[in-house]
Amino acid sequence: MIDLYTAATPNGFKVTIALEELGLPYRVTPLDLSALDQKKPDFLAINPNGRIPAIVDRDNGDFPVFESGAILIYLAEKAGKLLPQDPKRRSQAIQWLMFQMGGVGPMMGQANVFYRYFPEKIPAAIERYQKEGRRLFEVLDSHLAHHEYLADEYSIADIATWPWVRIYDWSGISIEGLTHLQAWMDRMAAKPACQKGINIPPRKEETPEEAAQRVQKLLGR
Amino acid sequence: MIDLYTAATPNGFKVTIALEELGLPYRVTPLDLSALDQKKPDFLAINPNGRIPAIVDRDNGDFPVFESGAILIYLAEKAGKLLPQDPKRRSQAIQWLMFQMGGVGPMMGQANVFYRYFPEKIPAAIERYQKEGRRLFEVLDSHLAHHEYLADEYSIADIATWPWVRIYDWSGISIEGLTHLQAWMDRMAAKPACQKGINIPPRKEETPEEAAQRVQKLLGR
Repeated sequence: MIDLYTAATPNGFKVTIALEELGLPYRVTPLDLSALDQKKPDFLAINPNGRIPAIVDRDNGDFPVFESGAILIYLAEKAGKLLPQDPKRRSQAIQWLMFQMGGVGPMMGQANVFYRYFPEKIPAAIERYQKEGRRLFEVLDSHLAHHEYLADEYSIADIATWPWVRIYDWSGISIEGLTHLQAWMDRMAAKPACQKGINIPPRKEETPEEAAQRVQKLLGR
Repeated sequence: MIDLYTAATPNGFKVTIALEELGLPYRVTPLDLSALDQKKPDFLAINPNGRIPAIVDRDNGDFPVFESGAILIYLAEKAGKLLPQDPKRRSQAIQWLMFQMGGVGPMMGQANVFYRYFPEKIPAAIERYQKEGRRLFEVLDSHLAHHEYLADEYSIADIATWPWVRIYDWSGISIEGLTHLQAWMDRMAAKPACQKGINIPPRKEETPEEAAQRVQKLLGR
């Protein structure tokens, strides 16, 4: 049994999609981010960085794993799926996983902060991250013109990337003209594991004002 | 033979340190970032993201690898060193590698942009990233209070993290009071591979104005 500590965010959905796709039994503990559950001592013992998602593998001596990218590699290797066996393709999956971890995720995250949540409107900062987000989308689009999935076969690289790219509109980043990226998004959205994963845990109904308050609290303001 | 395409930056130094430590033969092609070498078609064929570092393994069918984190995993697995054999420790090394790739690197990178290079001085943005950098340093410090290296044994996680943390002053982030982090930095700085790696390729002598111009060009301004 995998214990998953998570919330309804793109980084959390990476893990729920992977668990659904791999068919590994798991139990969800939703953390209330606005109550700062993720900064409480019990959770810091699992993830010293105080962020979701994190897992504890009860079948492996209560082994804790944090960082979504590391969780995906751990689960894929545990199940023997979603990470290619061929060494070159395996490396390609890890390369695109790192592209998400170091690029798509952090840059879209900053776009969201400055576009949606920051108390001041700073046009230069908004523009910086939306422009970088669009550039990263164009890199994906060019690659997907010649590949059905990021590492040719469906892998944790796709699962890491899709929960972020699908919220392009929330980040204020256009996908206009990126037909290969759009076709890949459609392929991902059609998968039952993707459809299920992005609803675990269910998103709390909240008004835009409540959402803004929640995130500003997270920003330490 | 490994062909390495790089420049004198923290992400580049991760790979030169690893290659030195692993004793793998390699040949350096320095890219002139201010001439936008990294956006030229020859290089985009190796790394579609147009950023350094990237490698081509001439002994493995000219296999290209991009993203510093993926290069580190590839090289460590090729040499059978710097990534623990024990599966739990191996996962811990990957967890801290991801913490660097998704946290320390991007956040210190943004701190540098707003503190050093951005044409406008935006105090709220500078503060945001310096504060997040300090928080990440505190996470490292707490962990290193009980571990000699990030995954207990010296690994690619340390090699990924040190070239960033060592430039804390350039990023405007204090390490005051973080004695465990400082002791780990001293352990890293004492290693011949670390000393050698951070000088390959040699940094071009430039004035602060030239450095600022170079980076503003990179920012697309």
